[in-house]
Amino acid sequence: MKSFASDNYAGVLPEIMESLQKTNKLHARSYGADETTKRATELFRQVFDADVDVYFVFNGTGANVLSISSATQSYNAVLCSDTSHIYNDESSAPETFTGCRFFPLAANDKGKLEPATISERLIRKGDVHYAQTAMLSITQATEYGTVYKPEEIKEIAALTKENGLYLHMDGSRFFNAAASLDCSLSDISSKAGVDILSLGGTKAGMMFGEAVVVFNKELSKHIAYKHKQVMQLASKTRFIAGQFEAMLQNELWRKTATHANKMAELLCKSLSKNRSIKITKPVEANAVFAEIPRGWYEPLQEHFPFYVWKDSTHEVRFMCAWDTQEAEIMAFADAINALAHP
Amino acid sequence: MKSFASDNYAGVLPEIMESLQKTNKLHARSYGADETTKRATELFRQVFDADVDVYFVFNGTGANVLSISSATQSYNAVLCSDTSHIYNDESSAPETFTGCRFFPLAANDKGKLEPATISERLIRKGDVHYAQTAMLSITQATEYGTVYKPEEIKEIAALTKENGLYLHMDGSRFFNAAASLDCSLSDISSKAGVDILSLGGTKAGMMFGEAVVVFNKELSKHIAYKHKQVMQLASKTRFIAGQFEAMLQNELWRKTATHANKMAELLCKSLSKNRSIKITKPVEANAVFAEIPRGWYEPLQEHFPFYVWKDSTHEVRFMCAWDTQEAEIMAFADAINALAHP
Amino acid sequence: MKSFASDNYAGVLPEIMESLQKTNKLHARSYGADETTKRATELFRQVFDADVDVYFVFNGTGANVLSISSATQSYNAVLCSDTSHIYNDESSAPETFTGCRFFPLAANDKGKLEPATISERLIRKGDVHYAQTAMLSITQATEYGTVYKPEEIKEIAALTKENGLYLHMDGSRFFNAAASLDCSLSDISSKAGVDILSLGGTKAGMMFGEAVVVFNKELSKHIAYKHKQVMQLASKTRFIAGQFEAMLQNELWRKTATHANKMAELLCKSLSKNRSIKITKPVEANAVFAEIPRGWYEPLQEHFPFYVWKDSTHEVRFMCAWDTQEAEIMAFADAINALAHP
Amino acid sequence: MKSFASDNYAGVLPEIMESLQKTNKLHARSYGADETTKRATELFRQVFDADVDVYFVFNGTGANVLSISSATQSYNAVLCSDTSHIYNDESSAPETFTGCRFFPLAANDKGKLEPATISERLIRKGDVHYAQTAMLSITQATEYGTVYKPEEIKEIAALTKENGLYLHMDGSRFFNAAASLDCSLSDISSKAGVDILSLGGTKAGMMFGEAVVVFNKELSKHIAYKHKQVMQLASKTRFIAGQFEAMLQNELWRKTATHANKMAELLCKSLSKNRSIKITKPVEANAVFAEIPRGWYEPLQEHFPFYVWKDSTHEVRFMCAWDTQEAEIMAFADAINALAHP
Repeated sequence: MKSFASDNYAGVLPEIMESLQKTNKLHARSYGADETTKRATELFRQVFDADVDVYFVFNGTGANVLSISSATQSYNAVLCSDTSHIYNDESSAPETFTGCRFFPLAANDKGKLEPATISERLIRKGDVHYAQTAMLSITQATEYGTVYKPEEIKEIAALTKENGLYLHMDGSRFFNAAASLDCSLSDISSKAGVDILSLGGTKAGMMFGEAVVVFNKELSKHIAYKHKQVMQLASKTRFIAGQFEAMLQNELWRKTATHANKMAELLCKSLSKNRSIKITKPVEANAVFAEIPRGWYEPLQEHFPFYVWKDSTHEVRFMCAWDTQEAEIMAFADAINALAHP
Repeated sequence: MKSFASDNYAGVLPEIMESLQKTNKLHARSYGADETTKRATELFRQVFDADVDVYFVFNGTGANVLSISSATQSYNAVLCSDTSHIYNDESSAPETFTGCRFFPLAANDKGKLEPATISERLIRKGDVHYAQTAMLSITQATEYGTVYKPEEIKEIAALTKENGLYLHMDGSRFFNAAASLDCSLSDISSKAGVDILSLGGTKAGMMFGEAVVVFNKELSKHIAYKHKQVMQLASKTRFIAGQFEAMLQNELWRKTATHANKMAELLCKSLSKNRSIKITKPVEANAVFAEIPRGWYEPLQEHFPFYVWKDSTHEVRFMCAWDTQEAEIMAFADAINALAHP
Repeated sequence: MKSFASDNYAGVLPEIMESLQKTNKLHARSYGADETTKRATELFRQVFDADVDVYFVFNGTGANVLSISSATQSYNAVLCSDTSHIYNDESSAPETFTGCRFFPLAANDKGKLEPATISERLIRKGDVHYAQTAMLSITQATEYGTVYKPEEIKEIAALTKENGLYLHMDGSRFFNAAASLDCSLSDISSKAGVDILSLGGTKAGMMFGEAVVVFNKELSKHIAYKHKQVMQLASKTRFIAGQFEAMLQNELWRKTATHANKMAELLCKSLSKNRSIKITKPVEANAVFAEIPRGWYEPLQEHFPFYVWKDSTHEVRFMCAWDTQEAEIMAFADAINALAHP
Repeated sequence: MKSFASDNYAGVLPEIMESLQKTNKLHARSYGADETTKRATELFRQVFDADVDVYFVFNGTGANVLSISSATQSYNAVLCSDTSHIYNDESSAPETFTGCRFFPLAANDKGKLEPATISERLIRKGDVHYAQTAMLSITQATEYGTVYKPEEIKEIAALTKENGLYLHMDGSRFFNAAASLDCSLSDISSKAGVDILSLGGTKAGMMFGEAVVVFNKELSKHIAYKHKQVMQLASKTRFIAGQFEAMLQNELWRKTATHANKMAELLCKSLSKNRSIKITKPVEANAVFAEIPRGWYEPLQEHFPFYVWKDSTHEVRFMCAWDTQEAEIMAFADAINALAHP
């Protein structure tokens, strides 16, 4: 099966499988005290052009919860988009572990948060009755496959700094964003004012593993302890670190993310020709959002699984991955044409 | 480096690496809805000879916390050994996530809990002022490398049932215990009255991954939701399930765990000859606990890392793994002899 | 000072002070095992015409958190109005203690939740990635001083039952609602399908103390333990129970709540005459919401404190209490006239 | 009924009832912004001879949880006596709210913690796998009715400071301790190195209410927010503050605590004469612990309720309160004599 359901349906990049083989040598100290982790951390510092701390974790929810817990007390609140993964798809893990309140902000029609929307919720500072806002979380690329430009992030970061908030970036598809913008990883993180980043590896083609990258040293105080406490400290950390090493070396990530993005562009182009289909969001990373006739769900999903995003408007999501093939896009286009012109 | 520090210093079994390659084919549904996970779950049911539910998780702390959270309300208490991993080595993750109180019970000189010790703490049932005991957690093999016999587990299980408690087994080294007892996996779990098991994969030679095995259907009610909430649901679950499949097929686990246990036996034999060394615990699995002269720590650890367990009595722990070689034991024995007879 | 800031600025009803004196006799068993608590509980059963369980607590946040925790697991979500006290004025106590996600629903222009609004959020049942909705919380009287009619509550209750949700009522000003509707306490709770009620005493004229009234026996399983755990079990419980006994006997609550409601009506009438003032919400209980010129805030608040509810529209809240006097309303009206016609 | 069960069976001191009447005047700002609270806080500063912060709370569990949460992160551990209220009688409230691990330390035969016992558990600093010890909690007077002398507290305080721990004192019966030592309140708190104190009011003769007194300004950072979050912020705070004002003025507390202590002394003397009774703990405050024949439980408790502390050794607790009368002690002695010499 190949599918457009999610980039986490895809397997592992050959280069990553190779790196796992390479990492699997003899004994290594556990819990991140090994040489591979040391080397990978050093590579992060080069790539992000900053003296970052790196904490390797298992999955995206773990990365987000660790990031947030490093910056909050239990009486705090976190602002996030009402379409964000952290608000919709991580159960109540964020609350259970951090104790915080999560306030949803309305995303604009591109799935992004605007400074004005954020400003409106910066209220009741110092009021003990109100969960005190300590952090803003934005997603890059967004859950709608759109991308914040460096200057947009800078503007948001300036706003958070002025108001004593930390800025978290959920970068589950961070590589796709950087590939889309044709910029460095630091241009949209360290250099744009992000305090802490959940950097996604799994959807980019790793077997498992994400990284929490700390740019703001104020957030380093508790995080090593929370890393363990949040159940995200791997005993054989080297196998996450080694995958990231392979991903960052020679910008493997850019090659594979660019490919996925291009496949989405191609898919968008192909779908756009069809009058029964309406593309609903700008295609800036590896997702295509479209409204399609509801009657097509079933016949299409039989061979090409995808997610129904919003059934009320019959908006669906098609996701491309590192391994999506042009031929698959074409086959999918044919299937759609067959439905459109039976 | 090869070491006696921990079995989590060891790498990944060749058979497991192979299985990972094999699993890495095309796309698969995420979050455990894939074919590999289905097959592995079926295999668990055969091997444990029971209609078990299986939840694949990332690490041991995650497995323990998920197990406990499936059986408790936040006003409950859990009884565990004062030497247990859950009490000493998982930060406050158990409390933070479950809200429960953890009461330590004195382990006997073999690192095991005795029914009488447990009975003494079955107090104040129904008293709202006292965190209400809901679960007992025992470790198999214990943190001291000793092993509960099937009849010992049955006796403890009977006691917990009579008192309305659930019985959890931390089986981080469960395979070593079954290999040591030369019994089936079910003999010391499903058939002995265990309600829920944290089954360790990482220390047994996997790259990452553990499994929570639910024997008592009462514990199935909330666990799927908690699995996600406790940040232990892998998107590419197939890569954990596939490893377990390889481990369980043809009892690969027995071969490798038996080897590790034998290496510990050999090491014990070798150390026993030395008058300056006192073996402190029965060697029943893959660990050797011994008191050695404190002056030996440094010269020995330079080449053969190990853990100092209790500095006050200079008790240390030597751990053998699936990849420990006889020659390494011999080299270690030589190094010790050189210290003993300089 | 007398003020329109909040009904919790008022002191204690003379009848309540008397009852406290009366309760203060000799020794009594602690933690609710006393005779006064027994008698008061019996009185609750009569007054609510149902076999209720009653848990006396210290304050409103405690009552709400206890109510919610009795009906939820940590992976659950609770739906509440975006204007509710539980969402805006109880810090992150609800999250920290229950672990749950709180989803805000848009209140209508009368500050009430409509069934259609609720229905829209009854989504993703059984989806482990989404905090599972287990409860709906509504406020009676609402934070806007409006009141749900019995049939409105019944309709909402039917909706929650159909969807497997529990219905919680935050009745911080429940007496004002019943007085306004001229109905019995049971008409808008037990008989209308409410599962659990936070019944407010403090704002009604007690010194301290609220009651959690359990109508649905399913919620009785854990609540006695949670009562203690949530730090709301008073050692000298009799002094809360005794106040409620006085409040319920001969419907003292109706006399005092009706008075407060009438004062609000009078205030509303008086303010309505003034062209510069716009009454923004129906006055159905003891609050008046109005838009007034912003320049009036300061001169008015010097003698008659009140809350600015929404500065952007210069909407303010005037609250009447059991001890508000007609003469005070008149003096306030004069002060406003002086500002309007200087 | 009069009883020796607990000092929380007693009612409210006449002076306190009077103060409640006096406080009940007109309107006052809520949530602690009132004049009574201001005055009471000022009085605390005089009495404790230090620039303390004071947070009025509802009950002892609330006071302890607020104190601990002000000094801890969720990955921390707290050391406390294995006989402490916080370890045995507050359900899992401490864990649920703070997330911390609570490690029990063995109390000596007087129910007190010794520095050597504490030192032994100051282990594994900086080890992420181990819940990091951040606080020590001691009880004054202890749960066994014994009292730490100022120099004992100073020694413990020095030990905690050296090791970067905060020192919490559970002063549920703090007034009894100060009366017993004939010292000032500051001698055994601010001047002895205590960082934060749970000061008990209810058992001392108040209707409800305790105070958290902060001596170490480092603990002031989060506490106002946690005060609300932990559900311990009273809307009509003046009624707690006013009771404390009455208690502190002219040292009312000393008069009443001294009386209770003397009654315990008298009871002890009276019991000591009886050969079948063994006094088990030094009587230094208002409790008497004794071993009595088990057959006496029932006939005695019919008229004079008391607690069975440890049934295995038939150790029971007799508690005296501010209202215990000499005649009651005598009547009790007679009842015992009748049992001893039937």
